[in-house]
Amino acid sequence: MTCRLRLDIAYDGSGFSGWSRQPALRTVQGVLEAALATIFARSGPPPVLTVAGRTDAGVHALGQVAHLDLTDEQLDSLARRGDGGGAPALARRLNGIAGLDSDVWVSSVTLAPSGFDARFSAIWRRYEYRVADANGPRNPLERARTLWYPAPLDDQAMDVAASGLVGLHDWAAYCKPREGATTIRTLQDFRWTRADDGVLVASVKADAFCHSMVRALVGATVAVGEGKLAVADLVVLRDQLQRTSAYKVMPAKGLVLLQVGYPDDAGLAERALQTRARRDAV
Amino acid sequence: MTCRLRLDIAYDGSGFSGWSRQPALRTVQGVLEAALATIFARSGPPPVLTVAGRTDAGVHALGQVAHLDLTDEQLDSLARRGDGGGAPALARRLNGIAGLDSDVWVSSVTLAPSGFDARFSAIWRRYEYRVADANGPRNPLERARTLWYPAPLDDQAMDVAASGLVGLHDWAAYCKPREGATTIRTLQDFRWTRADDGVLVASVKADAFCHSMVRALVGATVAVGEGKLAVADLVVLRDQLQRTSAYKVMPAKGLVLLQVGYPDDAGLAERALQTRARRDAV
Repeated sequence: MTCRLRLDIAYDGSGFSGWSRQPALRTVQGVLEAALATIFARSGPPPVLTVAGRTDAGVHALGQVAHLDLTDEQLDSLARRGDGGGAPALARRLNGIAGLDSDVWVSSVTLAPSGFDARFSAIWRRYEYRVADANGPRNPLERARTLWYPAPLDDQAMDVAASGLVGLHDWAAYCKPREGATTIRTLQDFRWTRADDGVLVASVKADAFCHSMVRALVGATVAVGEGKLAVADLVVLRDQLQRTSAYKVMPAKGLVLLQVGYPDDAGLAERALQTRARRDAV
Repeated sequence: MTCRLRLDIAYDGSGFSGWSRQPALRTVQGVLEAALATIFARSGPPPVLTVAGRTDAGVHALGQVAHLDLTDEQLDSLARRGDGGGAPALARRLNGIAGLDSDVWVSSVTLAPSGFDARFSAIWRRYEYRVADANGPRNPLERARTLWYPAPLDDQAMDVAASGLVGLHDWAAYCKPREGATTIRTLQDFRWTRADDGVLVASVKADAFCHSMVRALVGATVAVGEGKLAVADLVVLRDQLQRTSAYKVMPAKGLVLLQVGYPDDAGLAERALQTRARRDAV
């Protein structure tokens, strides 16, 4: 018997070479799995993490979701320590190992509902991207998650261009290709607004994103905001299905994974089966 | 003839040994005056900065104010460079030297009104202090300006204790003494609220603060929030005029200088004279 736990995780991506474990590089998965190996040192092979969004180097997250499976022995070892045990105790221990002031924080550990899979049950991901342009103030306290852009940007043109892209499409033109992976995705929401502090914030939501897609979409709309591309160009580029040098893929630092959506408990297992089937078919 | 300029400045204090220039240490004043020395390398002694709030090591600022005086020759040298010249050009050059992604940002340089003195004309300073306690989430992207506190804190008790301290008093008990400096100040506003993101935020405003006063006030109210002191204790401690170990002076990292207030232009010179006279009399 195993028991599945859901982890909700926040991190400042600046000091990480992305989510995925890599030899000799500091990654979020690497740091958390090393802490898990310490916690479960005396009870069999340490648990491994499955994640909703494998963020690139430098990308941040406030609402990352992962899961892990514990054996009965590992569950028992958690309960034995006398601090209440169970899932909340695991969050406290992981954060204790990371230390106060850590750049990664496990905001909660909970028992996952039946059929839950952090990656395959997810029905949408939402990101934001922050740009301080020449029209707005620059806040040094926000510089780790805000791109400072040296030109003024037309936020209204950017918003019009963004909403014109929404829908079910092949995003090959806005993705870094990956062997055997589909580039067909539903872009559910994409808008730009200027926040109260003058910073331009993009909100981008899709069922899933292919590699570097959010940063490409942000770069294309920023080119519109600077007057280098017209609003209509972005749809034309998309439908040519070819990558282009007409805009720049934006740096990782402005990007934050805000939230991952899941169906209600009844729909979880079904969704995971559907997602797997679709991916296998490609 | 000289011309006085007002500088509005923001910085992340994490990488600075405070505002004030010190040999061999990186300070905000030191970095900005070095940039001024570069800009005015060929036109006499470089300008020096006078500041509203000499923040300690690790303290941040979003609304710091300073002034400097330029000679006619220095003004001419600004105008000659052909980028529009004048005060805005000085902001662009200072930020250009600091570089994109710098931890200090000059948000504006403007001609100061007659009689303006960044330090002596100021009529109030407003700070905030941010604490993420065990009741709220911890955002790694905000950790440079938020103290992570391991216990739950009662924000309502803290707010009651804070507002009970407001008024014109001798703050010797809440200050690090400085030779020949008065500790009589008007605490104009002091409150605690829990922000939408669950972080406790103190807003503290006074005509001026003596050394370490904000961090002592924050520490005393946090002791109330943790149940280590009663609300009424803080007034008793204050009126004993003696420093105490009943609470801890809080770390610099949670503290941000938000805003400095000045009278309207007509009142500026008069205010500066009053402030100087009062300080000289002590």
